[in-house]
Amino acid sequence: MLNFEFQNPTKLIFGKGSIAKIEKQFSRPTKIMLTFGGGSVKQNGVYQQVIDALKGHEIVEFWGIEPNPKVETLRRAIELGKAENVEFIIAVGGGSTLDGTKLIACAIRYDGDAWALVLDPKKVTGAVPFASVMTMPATGSEMNNGAVISNLATKEKFAFYSYHPQFSILDPEVTYSIPPYQVACGIADSFVHVMEQYLTDTNINPLIDRWAEGILQTLIEIAPQIQENPRDYNLMSQYMFCATMALNRFISMGVPQDWATHNIGHELTALHGVTHGESLAVVLPATMTVLSEQKRNKILQYGERVWGITEGTDGLKIAETIGRTEQFFSQLGLKTRLSQLNIGEETIAEIERRFNERGTLLGECKNVNGAVARAILECAL
Amino acid sequence: MLNFEFQNPTKLIFGKGSIAKIEKQFSRPTKIMLTFGGGSVKQNGVYQQVIDALKGHEIVEFWGIEPNPKVETLRRAIELGKAENVEFIIAVGGGSTLDGTKLIACAIRYDGDAWALVLDPKKVTGAVPFASVMTMPATGSEMNNGAVISNLATKEKFAFYSYHPQFSILDPEVTYSIPPYQVACGIADSFVHVMEQYLTDTNINPLIDRWAEGILQTLIEIAPQIQENPRDYNLMSQYMFCATMALNRFISMGVPQDWATHNIGHELTALHGVTHGESLAVVLPATMTVLSEQKRNKILQYGERVWGITEGTDGLKIAETIGRTEQFFSQLGLKTRLSQLNIGEETIAEIERRFNERGTLLGECKNVNGAVARAILECAL
Repeated sequence: MLNFEFQNPTKLIFGKGSIAKIEKQFSRPTKIMLTFGGGSVKQNGVYQQVIDALKGHEIVEFWGIEPNPKVETLRRAIELGKAENVEFIIAVGGGSTLDGTKLIACAIRYDGDAWALVLDPKKVTGAVPFASVMTMPATGSEMNNGAVISNLATKEKFAFYSYHPQFSILDPEVTYSIPPYQVACGIADSFVHVMEQYLTDTNINPLIDRWAEGILQTLIEIAPQIQENPRDYNLMSQYMFCATMALNRFISMGVPQDWATHNIGHELTALHGVTHGESLAVVLPATMTVLSEQKRNKILQYGERVWGITEGTDGLKIAETIGRTEQFFSQLGLKTRLSQLNIGEETIAEIERRFNERGTLLGECKNVNGAVARAILECAL
Repeated sequence: MLNFEFQNPTKLIFGKGSIAKIEKQFSRPTKIMLTFGGGSVKQNGVYQQVIDALKGHEIVEFWGIEPNPKVETLRRAIELGKAENVEFIIAVGGGSTLDGTKLIACAIRYDGDAWALVLDPKKVTGAVPFASVMTMPATGSEMNNGAVISNLATKEKFAFYSYHPQFSILDPEVTYSIPPYQVACGIADSFVHVMEQYLTDTNINPLIDRWAEGILQTLIEIAPQIQENPRDYNLMSQYMFCATMALNRFISMGVPQDWATHNIGHELTALHGVTHGESLAVVLPATMTVLSEQKRNKILQYGERVWGITEGTDGLKIAETIGRTEQFFSQLGLKTRLSQLNIGEETIAEIERRFNERGTLLGECKNVNGAVARAILECAL
């Protein structure tokens, strides 16, 4: 097992009717900024539930944090938070709203421009405390200290690590109104979060392997049932729970990680606006194929334990395992090929150029450079 | 899934050489009380490592917290902590040392007698912050807010819930010197912690079922290997990690719990000083047998997924599953029958009387009264 440090102080408040429990989290009247994405929370009743639960507190609202939150938008929220001197922030929405809110919370306590914090998180010296009412299970942002922030001007998209939410409210009933495509992307995102922490070497932390496989098995089990019954409380609570457990660092304890798939996927989003979950569905099978020799033992373990693949030569088992993974994504209704997204050589060349320019080497073995990223993307055509 | 709230703020610092990292946890010179059990930490070098890591801090030492810590002993530590006005406490030892330290930390901030806090935890209003250097993986105390405290005068043993350790240092190398019997008890204790949270109804939180099964499978896999190689870093790190994960509330999220086995086992310890892990090895198979109708589906799931038992009638599968569980404990070298401990009818009658007197109904279905406890103990003869 690798040495590790682990701490996750976020309080989860999970279940039917949990939005009403926000009020118990405050001991005195507080000036709270609510941050939102689009208007869907007004249609599905979440907005009203939150407002009802916060009676007696002073509320400031900021609307319009978009998917793949852009620093250009967040700067306006930061200005508002500074001007109103808010004491607490609650993100009401999906992972993008919460990701944006993490930067807002830090930048309110910072004198310079917010993008400087993304480029150099050492500049973060504090944050307005914040929490979330999660409406879109996918990113795990509700129980981790990470965020992904985009810059429209520079067409860049980077991870940003700062603080955990103080608490996160997870009421599976709020997921009933999510469009099926978004649910599919959320399941794919959660699935690939697990794979990034799992698909490295074998026998490093066997319990964590089993926990990771447990999330994958559960997602595979519930995905087709959710397509049939998107308003089934039991199914949607499993989906919501798996999404949180997939990226709260539980399954990263004592193991190496990869994240090459995410880094390549982020470029597809930055350059073409591909939905995050769908970008991963395109990149993961190709990453597995290109790195199948390096990840051989773990792909075989994953194939056997998660997909029940035990027959044939190792090569055949690996091919079948990768095929089943791609099929899982396509049965979710997601595209799994760049050609389906009308993305081709021009984009591949640009991503290769960016990887080489940055000089960062990605993946568990730090061997994913521009050329390997190109090979992965060509394999995903 | 059941509604739940979850929060676990403890920082884990896990791995080889982690004791030296204590120094990074303090930002200024601090008056620290170190609490210890017997002298084994002087023999295995842990004491010296801790002292070396705390250079520059003022240290007060309290020695002599015994297994199944007694309030009579803890009162002396509380007096010392009050007199010395300590600012922080680090428990250096096993679960008993840390359990005792949790009460010490609370009682230093309380004017009355410490046992009053055990009887009524609502009287707890604060605590000296505390941490642990864990030397004996078993109780999970290093990452939860629970403790079990005994009263010599009244021959009672009760659970006490208060605060989490701020951090816990887990260096698997410190386990090399634990006597094999203690390792066996620690593995049994961890195993039964999982069972108390797992052996209820099926399909409530399928992911958590898989996580619980993952811990059980890992313990079953490593137990015989540890008997052969008690100084294998990889094996001992898995054991240490499993013990913590078995009782840090991760696997209690969204599921019911039982704890009848522990409550009956505690009486055996209170009345006869039976080692905690061994008391559970005696009681668990009998609890499974007596409640096999109620727990039917989960025993079948456990038998199939953990022990690979798929052949025969349900009745045969259940019998084989319980048999394999008892065999696991006896292969650890533990006694699994009251008769082996020279405990008989007199004790059974006393435990039945205590259960009836207290009127508490135990287990997931709150149906374990004095008569059911008698049936379980008779089955364990």
